[in-house]
Amino acid sequence: MASLLSVLTVKNLLVLSLALNVSLIFKVLVLHDSQSYSFFIEHDGTKEEALLSTVPSSSSSSSSSSYSLLMDQDRVINLDHGDPTMYESYWQKMGEETTVVIPGWQFMSYFSDATKLCWFLEPEFANQIVRLHNVVGNAVTENRHIIVGTGSTQLYQAALYALSPDTDAEPISVVSAAPYYSSYPLITDCVKSGLYKWGGDARSFSKTGPYIELVTSPNNPDGFARRSVVNGSEGIIIHDLAYYWPQYTPISAAANYDLMLFTVSKSTGHAGMRIGWALVKDEDVARKMTKYIEINTIGVSKDSQLRAAKVLKVISDNSERMNAANSFFEFSYHVMAKRWKQLREAVHESGLFSVPDFPPRLCNFLNVVFEPQPAFAWVKCEGEIEDCESFFRGKKILTRSGTHFGVSPKYVRISMLDRDRNYDTFVERLSRIRS
Amino acid sequence: MASLLSVLTVKNLLVLSLALNVSLIFKVLVLHDSQSYSFFIEHDGTKEEALLSTVPSSSSSSSSSSYSLLMDQDRVINLDHGDPTMYESYWQKMGEETTVVIPGWQFMSYFSDATKLCWFLEPEFANQIVRLHNVVGNAVTENRHIIVGTGSTQLYQAALYALSPDTDAEPISVVSAAPYYSSYPLITDCVKSGLYKWGGDARSFSKTGPYIELVTSPNNPDGFARRSVVNGSEGIIIHDLAYYWPQYTPISAAANYDLMLFTVSKSTGHAGMRIGWALVKDEDVARKMTKYIEINTIGVSKDSQLRAAKVLKVISDNSERMNAANSFFEFSYHVMAKRWKQLREAVHESGLFSVPDFPPRLCNFLNVVFEPQPAFAWVKCEGEIEDCESFFRGKKILTRSGTHFGVSPKYVRISMLDRDRNYDTFVERLSRIRS
Repeated sequence: MASLLSVLTVKNLLVLSLALNVSLIFKVLVLHDSQSYSFFIEHDGTKEEALLSTVPSSSSSSSSSSYSLLMDQDRVINLDHGDPTMYESYWQKMGEETTVVIPGWQFMSYFSDATKLCWFLEPEFANQIVRLHNVVGNAVTENRHIIVGTGSTQLYQAALYALSPDTDAEPISVVSAAPYYSSYPLITDCVKSGLYKWGGDARSFSKTGPYIELVTSPNNPDGFARRSVVNGSEGIIIHDLAYYWPQYTPISAAANYDLMLFTVSKSTGHAGMRIGWALVKDEDVARKMTKYIEINTIGVSKDSQLRAAKVLKVISDNSERMNAANSFFEFSYHVMAKRWKQLREAVHESGLFSVPDFPPRLCNFLNVVFEPQPAFAWVKCEGEIEDCESFFRGKKILTRSGTHFGVSPKYVRISMLDRDRNYDTFVERLSRIRS
Repeated sequence: MASLLSVLTVKNLLVLSLALNVSLIFKVLVLHDSQSYSFFIEHDGTKEEALLSTVPSSSSSSSSSSYSLLMDQDRVINLDHGDPTMYESYWQKMGEETTVVIPGWQFMSYFSDATKLCWFLEPEFANQIVRLHNVVGNAVTENRHIIVGTGSTQLYQAALYALSPDTDAEPISVVSAAPYYSSYPLITDCVKSGLYKWGGDARSFSKTGPYIELVTSPNNPDGFARRSVVNGSEGIIIHDLAYYWPQYTPISAAANYDLMLFTVSKSTGHAGMRIGWALVKDEDVARKMTKYIEINTIGVSKDSQLRAAKVLKVISDNSERMNAANSFFEFSYHVMAKRWKQLREAVHESGLFSVPDFPPRLCNFLNVVFEPQPAFAWVKCEGEIEDCESFFRGKKILTRSGTHFGVSPKYVRISMLDRDRNYDTFVERLSRIRS
């Protein structure tokens, strides 16, 4: 009797579970139409809604149970934004090492060091920034001012403010070669500034006079190394180096530009901290960038700067110890390498898509020759498919259309930084798509 | 011999110490001319430089040793900005209670709760905001959306973005009755927005059509309770309630406006967190404010939100326990009461200045009748002194001129929130000023 009951119970539970799944899937789809909110600046004004992935935040490994397989068949995979949750498993492994403890009575003042140009920059964070760049060899820090920002997004705006002419002339044009980061036009024109104005694709820019060119290298969305393309004499260049780290691309030389932007979101994976930094050669530009952040937010969270300092310190410590097992960049390099291998295999199996090929280069930091393995896959739908984003949406994979990046809808950008289970489901689903 | 040596040593040390003092004072003055940087948005473009106070950050009690008396005679007291360091001693007394511990692998995602309108708002922080307003009774939270910002400064900009018309009409006018918070014009016109434009003193505003009026109550700089003054039919009001807390003013009723701004800087003293919140009635406005923060900084530091949640929780806990000795608002109410008493006595002794008088009212939270004791003293130089800020500067007291607040230079704003030693030196010096 007990045995019969137990069999019945298992069967009953299975039925219940299936019913629950159907109901959950239904809820997600209904939510999509009526209640969900659009996320991330990288959308245009067409009010696209990003469906939520239903994988709980604690899940970081792929599961092959029948329950999760059933769930995975209809689960919406949201790879539209680049939430770097892939890195959670590394930091979990590091345990207490990067735990921060902040007493309630410390770091209460607006000021971090009132004698410094960037008076809201925590000195320990500044030290760890310089140290990490020296360890990795990806940027020159000598004779640079460090400006901390609430993510590199705020620093980008600070740079526009600082680089715009003081005159009452018309707004300075801000351009970037397509495909460009989809947020740039939205941020630039957000409040219709009279100082600067989005000017579109740098390749077709032909105005005379001063302009600002954004060079993202490796590029978001397509991963290629970049240089400026406008051939004007009065150009000012902002180098967005968010992805110039060894897990994404070979570090061939220390970047040595006038104004370079970095962020913890894409280097260490701590997007929730909202911390970025700029390395700025010109003192006057650095002072004006500081002024913008003063006006915009009266400085930057001390708590997140302290936490970022600790995270950067652990990365440098582990890199210097030459302990490959604990090296952050070894870990993340191998995850990215595996994911790109999976992606290329799935693309090959399907036959409907293409992804860029990159020339291999020597990475001075890892001492390995490898092909770039960008944080985003820049996927082209081949053949008849004109609207690649809609096509993927039909397969319950949310991506970002090429139109947001200034190019054809035959392209989409797909995040490579999600948790294992989402990523594995994505490539598995991709490999089964046939024309 | 040992005794002679010891006497000599003390004398030598005194000479050395005096020499050091002179050298330090010299350095501060030289630094002022050549190297120091301007702080805080509350200045206009005239590049005023704020001299640094030389009191180390760990000092929180007044000292009467000969060493510090000597230092205090020539020490520059910077009360230009409202750095709320006065609160450090309370939080130090609370010890471990408000310590936050954040493991390196948590709160990494951009998202706090992706199903919510304000997807970057930490749920626990939202809970503690509602709880604290209920405990204090200073604002209605029912049927409000909570939007978190990088300080209320960012929320002010988010509100301007959300409230500006979508049309291509000319920028909407933003006005506030003088004396108004000196940052408002600077923030509003920072990037010469085509959406909104600073329109000056609300009392002289006479344009027809839509406008935005800022009502700061209690007002910064003068501490008076305020209502809107423009009599237009198309006005939209932003209520900045940063100072509507029981240490500054009697809490007579729960504020019940459409759009209310608060900040931890002035409520709990944690300016370094850069955390503020808005209570917003209209869902569409709340969504647009969220969008602005998404575009401006892709959300708000999770770490600071967690820390703010803990600080707010301890305040509510201690208030609910009715333990006056540990109550944050009892502590801060008494410090402010003592400081205002000192200030009024010093003003009386000097005879050269005046400060506003406020009618006493019942505070429902503290259950005491008291006169408002604002976070800033709005001081008028009486008699012949036309430039009050320069006059105080001559006495090595840095203040902010009334001109920044849209009124006469006969007024200055003086922070009442500095550490004890600075504040005591200030009132002592003030009381000795004679015509």
